Amino acid sequence: MELALSTTLHTTFDDAIERTRTALAAQGFGILTEIDMRATMKAKLDEEMEDYLILGACNPALAHRAVGIDRQIGLLLPCNVVVRRERTASDTDTVIVEAMNPELMARITGEPALDPVVADATARLRAAIGELAAG
Amino acid sequence: MELALSTTLHTTFDDAIERTRTALAAQGFGILTEIDMRATMKAKLDEEMEDYLILGACNPALAHRAVGIDRQIGLLLPCNVVVRRERTASDTDTVIVEAMNPELMARITGEPALDPVVADATARLRAAIGELAAG
Repeated sequence: MELALSTTLHTTFDDAIERTRTALAAQGFGILTEIDMRATMKAKLDEEMEDYLILGACNPALAHRAVGIDRQIGLLLPCNVVVRRERTASDTDTVIVEAMNPELMARITGEPALDPVVADATARLRAAIGELAAG
Repeated sequence: MELALSTTLHTTFDDAIERTRTALAAQGFGILTEIDMRATMKAKLDEEMEDYLILGACNPALAHRAVGIDRQIGLLLPCNVVVRRERTASDTDTVIVEAMNPELMARITGEPALDPVVADATARLRAAIGELAAG
């Protein structure tokens, strides 16, 4: 099973973030959390790394269905979408966008009742990533 | 494999949150994100649920080691710690605290080089949960 649904964009990091937000919103995902890994590593450890943002994406209706089926599902929510600069391309604008494959949730929990929710989430995230890939 | 490292506290919801933060901090985990699921479900869907908070816990040194081994690991960071009121005990103070078992990361990624990082994270989260359980 793939860990991520992903695509590679050739644009600026900020534009990649903006386009990712728009594509996720079109599929009903809001961004509940945002972690700037680069800033966090710099602030906490004085370590350098490439631009690396973790967005916590949540489709409220899907989250509500999931938590109604398995109260522990919050351990795997929201669905992370990572936007990060390709490390080997620091002087160019190559940005990787990857979403956690929701099918991992069904696999981890072993809860078959989650399958339709997971399928819906996967289809929506695939559509968002596909939209980004199509430019 | 257990999905969660968990314990049950008999105290108020707010006290459980405070004690959870303290126990995590003692193990080097800061809280990077916080999602109030109850407020989110109410605001977005007008649905009611019990108190349910998702804390995104991060130990910067461990996160730095993990991302150095597997650049995709941000899909599974930070480590979620859910603090939620027991549903069948709405009139009493019974609160469940559960942390995502970091061993799931090694299993999901299939990256053996992550094993020592995962073992360290698991030991720290077990210690935090144990501290909470000991009161």
